[in-house]
Amino acid sequence: MKQFVIIGLGRFGSSLGKELVQLGYEVLGIDKNEETVDDMSRVLTHVVAADATDEETLRALGVRNFDCGIVAIGDDIQSSILATIQLKDIGVKSVVAKALSELHGRVLEKLGVDRVIYPERDMGIRVAHQLVSPNLLDYIELSKEYTIAELAVPRCLNGKSLQDINTRARYGCSIVAINKPKGGVIIAPTADEVLAEQDVMVVIGTNKQIEQFEEAIVQ
Amino acid sequence: MKQFVIIGLGRFGSSLGKELVQLGYEVLGIDKNEETVDDMSRVLTHVVAADATDEETLRALGVRNFDCGIVAIGDDIQSSILATIQLKDIGVKSVVAKALSELHGRVLEKLGVDRVIYPERDMGIRVAHQLVSPNLLDYIELSKEYTIAELAVPRCLNGKSLQDINTRARYGCSIVAINKPKGGVIIAPTADEVLAEQDVMVVIGTNKQIEQFEEAIVQ
Amino acid sequence: MKQFVIIGLGRFGSSLGKELVQLGYEVLGIDKNEETVDDMSRVLTHVVAADATDEETLRALGVRNFDCGIVAIGDDIQSSILATIQLKDIGVKSVVAKALSELHGRVLEKLGVDRVIYPERDMGIRVAHQLVSPNLLDYIELSKEYTIAELAVPRCLNGKSLQDINTRARYGCSIVAINKPKGGVIIAPTADEVLAEQDVMVVIGTNKQIEQFEEAIVQ
Amino acid sequence: MKQFVIIGLGRFGSSLGKELVQLGYEVLGIDKNEETVDDMSRVLTHVVAADATDEETLRALGVRNFDCGIVAIGDDIQSSILATIQLKDIGVKSVVAKALSELHGRVLEKLGVDRVIYPERDMGIRVAHQLVSPNLLDYIELSKEYTIAELAVPRCLNGKSLQDINTRARYGCSIVAINKPKGGVIIAPTADEVLAEQDVMVVIGTNKQIEQFEEAIVQ
Amino acid sequence: MKQFVIIGLGRFGSSLGKELVQLGYEVLGIDKNEETVDDMSRVLTHVVAADATDEETLRALGVRNFDCGIVAIGDDIQSSILATIQLKDIGVKSVVAKALSELHGRVLEKLGVDRVIYPERDMGIRVAHQLVSPNLLDYIELSKEYTIAELAVPRCLNGKSLQDINTRARYGCSIVAINKPKGGVIIAPTADEVLAEQDVMVVIGTNKQIEQFEEAIVQ
Amino acid sequence: MKQFVIIGLGRFGSSLGKELVQLGYEVLGIDKNEETVDDMSRVLTHVVAADATDEETLRALGVRNFDCGIVAIGDDIQSSILATIQLKDIGVKSVVAKALSELHGRVLEKLGVDRVIYPERDMGIRVAHQLVSPNLLDYIELSKEYTIAELAVPRCLNGKSLQDINTRARYGCSIVAINKPKGGVIIAPTADEVLAEQDVMVVIGTNKQIEQFEEAIVQ
Amino acid sequence: MKQFVIIGLGRFGSSLGKELVQLGYEVLGIDKNEETVDDMSRVLTHVVAADATDEETLRALGVRNFDCGIVAIGDDIQSSILATIQLKDIGVKSVVAKALSELHGRVLEKLGVDRVIYPERDMGIRVAHQLVSPNLLDYIELSKEYTIAELAVPRCLNGKSLQDINTRARYGCSIVAINKPKGGVIIAPTADEVLAEQDVMVVIGTNKQIEQFEEAIVQ
Amino acid sequence: MKQFVIIGLGRFGSSLGKELVQLGYEVLGIDKNEETVDDMSRVLTHVVAADATDEETLRALGVRNFDCGIVAIGDDIQSSILATIQLKDIGVKSVVAKALSELHGRVLEKLGVDRVIYPERDMGIRVAHQLVSPNLLDYIELSKEYTIAELAVPRCLNGKSLQDINTRARYGCSIVAINKPKGGVIIAPTADEVLAEQDVMVVIGTNKQIEQFEEAIVQ
Repeated sequence: MKQFVIIGLGRFGSSLGKELVQLGYEVLGIDKNEETVDDMSRVLTHVVAADATDEETLRALGVRNFDCGIVAIGDDIQSSILATIQLKDIGVKSVVAKALSELHGRVLEKLGVDRVIYPERDMGIRVAHQLVSPNLLDYIELSKEYTIAELAVPRCLNGKSLQDINTRARYGCSIVAINKPKGGVIIAPTADEVLAEQDVMVVIGTNKQIEQFEEAIVQ
Repeated sequence: MKQFVIIGLGRFGSSLGKELVQLGYEVLGIDKNEETVDDMSRVLTHVVAADATDEETLRALGVRNFDCGIVAIGDDIQSSILATIQLKDIGVKSVVAKALSELHGRVLEKLGVDRVIYPERDMGIRVAHQLVSPNLLDYIELSKEYTIAELAVPRCLNGKSLQDINTRARYGCSIVAINKPKGGVIIAPTADEVLAEQDVMVVIGTNKQIEQFEEAIVQ
Repeated sequence: MKQFVIIGLGRFGSSLGKELVQLGYEVLGIDKNEETVDDMSRVLTHVVAADATDEETLRALGVRNFDCGIVAIGDDIQSSILATIQLKDIGVKSVVAKALSELHGRVLEKLGVDRVIYPERDMGIRVAHQLVSPNLLDYIELSKEYTIAELAVPRCLNGKSLQDINTRARYGCSIVAINKPKGGVIIAPTADEVLAEQDVMVVIGTNKQIEQFEEAIVQ
Repeated sequence: MKQFVIIGLGRFGSSLGKELVQLGYEVLGIDKNEETVDDMSRVLTHVVAADATDEETLRALGVRNFDCGIVAIGDDIQSSILATIQLKDIGVKSVVAKALSELHGRVLEKLGVDRVIYPERDMGIRVAHQLVSPNLLDYIELSKEYTIAELAVPRCLNGKSLQDINTRARYGCSIVAINKPKGGVIIAPTADEVLAEQDVMVVIGTNKQIEQFEEAIVQ
Repeated sequence: MKQFVIIGLGRFGSSLGKELVQLGYEVLGIDKNEETVDDMSRVLTHVVAADATDEETLRALGVRNFDCGIVAIGDDIQSSILATIQLKDIGVKSVVAKALSELHGRVLEKLGVDRVIYPERDMGIRVAHQLVSPNLLDYIELSKEYTIAELAVPRCLNGKSLQDINTRARYGCSIVAINKPKGGVIIAPTADEVLAEQDVMVVIGTNKQIEQFEEAIVQ
Repeated sequence: MKQFVIIGLGRFGSSLGKELVQLGYEVLGIDKNEETVDDMSRVLTHVVAADATDEETLRALGVRNFDCGIVAIGDDIQSSILATIQLKDIGVKSVVAKALSELHGRVLEKLGVDRVIYPERDMGIRVAHQLVSPNLLDYIELSKEYTIAELAVPRCLNGKSLQDINTRARYGCSIVAINKPKGGVIIAPTADEVLAEQDVMVVIGTNKQIEQFEEAIVQ
Repeated sequence: MKQFVIIGLGRFGSSLGKELVQLGYEVLGIDKNEETVDDMSRVLTHVVAADATDEETLRALGVRNFDCGIVAIGDDIQSSILATIQLKDIGVKSVVAKALSELHGRVLEKLGVDRVIYPERDMGIRVAHQLVSPNLLDYIELSKEYTIAELAVPRCLNGKSLQDINTRARYGCSIVAINKPKGGVIIAPTADEVLAEQDVMVVIGTNKQIEQFEEAIVQ
Repeated sequence: MKQFVIIGLGRFGSSLGKELVQLGYEVLGIDKNEETVDDMSRVLTHVVAADATDEETLRALGVRNFDCGIVAIGDDIQSSILATIQLKDIGVKSVVAKALSELHGRVLEKLGVDRVIYPERDMGIRVAHQLVSPNLLDYIELSKEYTIAELAVPRCLNGKSLQDINTRARYGCSIVAINKPKGGVIIAPTADEVLAEQDVMVVIGTNKQIEQFEEAIVQ
């Protein structure tokens, strides 16, 4: 089973570590701040208060044997870069790092990081989409053109069957699943399936098709 | 058309604002820092260097007429709270605010914020899932049990038809769409559709079903 | 008997705690600063150096069992707000908080604080009244119109009886008590009671009546 | 008409100045901070951003001609002391100063200040009394023994006449006035006056008498 | 024998304390800085690292029994003033304090300090006189008009007798003593006493007389 | 006539400069601090706000033509040393510098400074002598053994003639001058001269002789 | 002719730039500090006060057209790294960067820097060699074994011919040049060339040979 | 064998100390920073965390017995100067000091330092020469006119004999040694010696001659 080492236990790093532990993985957390480390000691498998830019520290902790290293340092670009090169040079197989800016991201890529993450930037984009579509709960961009959207069923669709709505014919997009709070998830629902206001529907189509469908169902 | 005011143009706020503008909306950005405001002046519809905790400033900017206010202040809990109460009291219809901690989030909810966002925490959870499933590109949690997963097609499925794989029978989950880089997105693919290594497939099923499918296709 | 917890032992909090102890109540004082806590350990029933924005700390101290919590934090609006929501959420029956500004006060009210106190502002108003009326020692505003004033008896009234002065007829206000340093307090004094320069008289009337009486007796 | 100069426009000084202006007096406000001065320019008669420990500045402003100077400097004991001696030496008739500690107060007294004010300490004492007596709205300490208390009429006294209650006989204290929200203030009410729950009564008596009366009427 | 307590062991305080000890007196030195106190522990009779503005500290050290207290605090006017009032109120017979400015000095005088010292200012004046008169070694101002000056004998007076020079007749001033490095001090020297270049002469006269004599003997 | 340049206009430098101007000399004052320079512009002949460690600045100001340079920089040893070497290398004839410590003084001497001054240290020594001798007003140390002391005439000598006191015979020291507030200075007073309590006498003798005389006349 | 851009005008960068200009090259200097830029404006061809981590700034300055970029930033590893990647990405042909530590150097190499320089480290090594060999003026390490050393001719070799010394036979090393202060440099000197004490000789040999020769000629 | 004491273990001091130890000498390192001292404890003979401007510390460490003291303090001119005078006064035979600026260097020289070093400045000059001559590896300036240069053999000289190149005749400079990576160093090579691309040649000549040779062999 994979082992993870996370450097920097701020909001992003600690949330990531907590989720990995809940998914059943072993996680070593490293942070300079002793208080932060104390707080996380009940959450992560192992925690250490140490300077992750120091090679000897990383060797002493056996970091080279970890499968994946995540550099999640909060606000200090220098420490992020120096910790990243240490992880790479010490031989950690896969290194993921959080970038604070596009320029920081370019340096991380040059250092051979496997994946650069921009949490605040990506979340900003995601929230923007949700703000402009009141029924949009979540979405996946399949391609530049196609999207899967999770939409709340609005009041105007209450009691209507998929046949009544007929998204295929009217908008070009398809409802591929319905989540009924009390009835569970119906995959590939039939045309006589009836929607209720509390339901959530999963729609696949082009951005334009989904947009038109969304606009039609906003009161 | 909706108008947005964003208070705090850090990484989250600026990314959110930029996306809203690209989606065609009008955005007013407010930040204390003049340099930040200068940088964003080419991106947002309007930008102002001002203290958003000051009622007169907000009135003078006509903030009360905006449909939605987003308090995206970076690291200063006090300013975030004071700006939030100003937006609420001045009469902005919908107020969304970014929280730096669970405690901060509780205060924001008591102040009547419509939605509290934890960008770093949520992104941490999302990245955790992607790190443990090498083929997982993105996902939507439909319910506690059901998920829609966007998976990269691994080499071992190259040249196989959906009939060969038969996810329905073997794992219980369904492939509801395939994105072929050169062939576009195929919605509700037929059983004789053949997968290639560059393809991406969209799978719906319970967490357990998808997990088993993922494990089976990891080499 | 009521139990009080005071968070923040600055000038206001420590004075409040000291008086409560002298009135016979049990008081737990909490402050971040160890030196401050040491100084107050001889004055209050219990003192603890701790961060009152931390939920576990408050639970460990059994703060939920106190009847009344007073957030008297000096200069840090953020800590004041976070400590207040902790007291409210932990279940303290009555929460009183000191505000540093009108905006801070509005947040505290939204959080459900039972009473918001502005010590410096209120004292400023009180001192203003005393400065403009040289004989005014203290006062209670009964309503927008009526006031009870405690006035020093000036030299010009020395040896005069209430009948001589006849405030009722001349100014419309009544002298309801006289405090004679050596003779004690006389409640509802008779018309032949004679005033001396060291005496203090309690007058009830409209603001206008009392003002005119004050002006008449200033030399 | 008296003219006041206030040095230091923090919470106490600005509140004091505002009240003096509302009472019809001319007030000059001096503060080092330009922003503070700007904010108060709409409130006080005159405001100046200046260092009040500098003799020439005070002379240039004609401070010697003011009747009363109030040193309301917030947190800087040294500036408070130096501004005080300047006001005294320049010849301001009456000087009042706010003290931050008992030691600071002793220095101010030695410098010949007419009155030393401890706003936070005094307000702490006042609030302590109100917290322990739920019906107590305000009070004046006439002497060490006697107090005038403004008490909210509790539900248990609703509809009762003063004769029914008979505070004189039962507790020794007298009700000298009643404030009826809709009926105005009744001074020296007669025995058949009936109390209602929204009323406020003014009671004179010894501390002990009033305390016993208060305890009797708390449910 | 007199006992001294010195508060503040900077350059002035430590030099003063050292000299008092060398003159045979007992000296207690108090300074906030532990390192400074360590350095002086070999020099003064007793040293304590403590905050001299704290009454209990001063009482615990028995400061009230000292004959003379010197407040020699370096750069902190507030601490200087607060320590001074503590020494006065605790009952130290004689209090001397160093002032950092004329305004500070005025406060110290109001507090009843027996002598205010301005070391840098006074030394500036003394050095000025020495700089303009190359032969002037030291001087005492007897009155506004009269001075005693200690002058180096210049080469031009080498081998001359007092009779030759005849300061009385020529300049009006008198040579009242001569210090001959190898012959000791000659008080009230006779007219045939001969000066040598290494000698030092003590001259009494008006400022003008001495000035003219000095100018005459400068080459 | 000599010209002086003073670098550093703190308490010592400004006092020195002021005195030199009053003695009729031309003084150029240089200080980094603009406010300080403004304050001194009414006192000194010329003032400049500049960095005196910069060679070009000194050349531009024509500092090389000054007769005497005084480095009176307050608290910054580095600036003091760098300014000193600049004055020496630029060719100022005579350079005097204030030292903050003995070590600093040793560096200044190695750099060829003509005179090193320790104002606080020297004043500390002077004040120590005055504190232990209540009648001592001022003194000059003629040699290790001999001193000239300016002593206040105590009450016990009031009305006594020099013959009565006979210091020569009893203590070995001589009274060489008397300063009578209303009668002027009497040089070489005769034996029948009578002392009064307001007088000041100048005594020459060995340290021991003067000490014994002082002790005899202290009540 | 080559053009150079230097980022960071501290001691290393300014010295480098100055020498390049003296060698006849065109140099653009960039530094954040305006004062530094002013000082260098008389020395370098062009100077700009700008933030070199900002891509637009570098483009606006036409930095892409320079042949060689030197990142000589003093103490800020982050800025050094970010400026380096900007120079590389903008297309500067050759990039040289100063490293503050070995770890910093490793990052710079990963970013594709053509040469990493450690000025303080290299100078430390060079000075070490000179300190242990009193006659050693300078040297070049040809290989791990061979060195060219520039040695001062000591007194003991004064007047001796190369034949007398015969370094070839005795130590194995050869004198390949002699620099005679008044006679110029003699390359490949003949055996009858005579050394004088002011001369400097250039010796080639193994480290051991030169070391033995040096030891033999130290007195 | 010589003993060295190094004050200041920054980049320059630590590199110098490390090299001296490798050359077989005993080195005592002193630095204020405990962490720095810990890091160097494995490298130098002795290390101490101490303030080297304190005379007693230096005496206690027996610094007077060292042959050579190097003041390598990084960024603090004052400490550098004070440590230097202490080393000189305590009697260290030879003192070498690093200067941060030309002015600092002048002070060090006045204090009698045997050699002043400017690492960054000197390295800047050295790097400048290498940057402008792509083949130049290292060099020694024999005089203002003559240089010994270590040049990489470029491709265009591959396979050519010294006779072919004939530097003497064409450029006036001589090749006095060739370093062949696999064949060792050939001193005073014969005319038929053939160069290869990996070789390094040592050339002596005037600056002009070498410059022309370099230009001729740059492609």
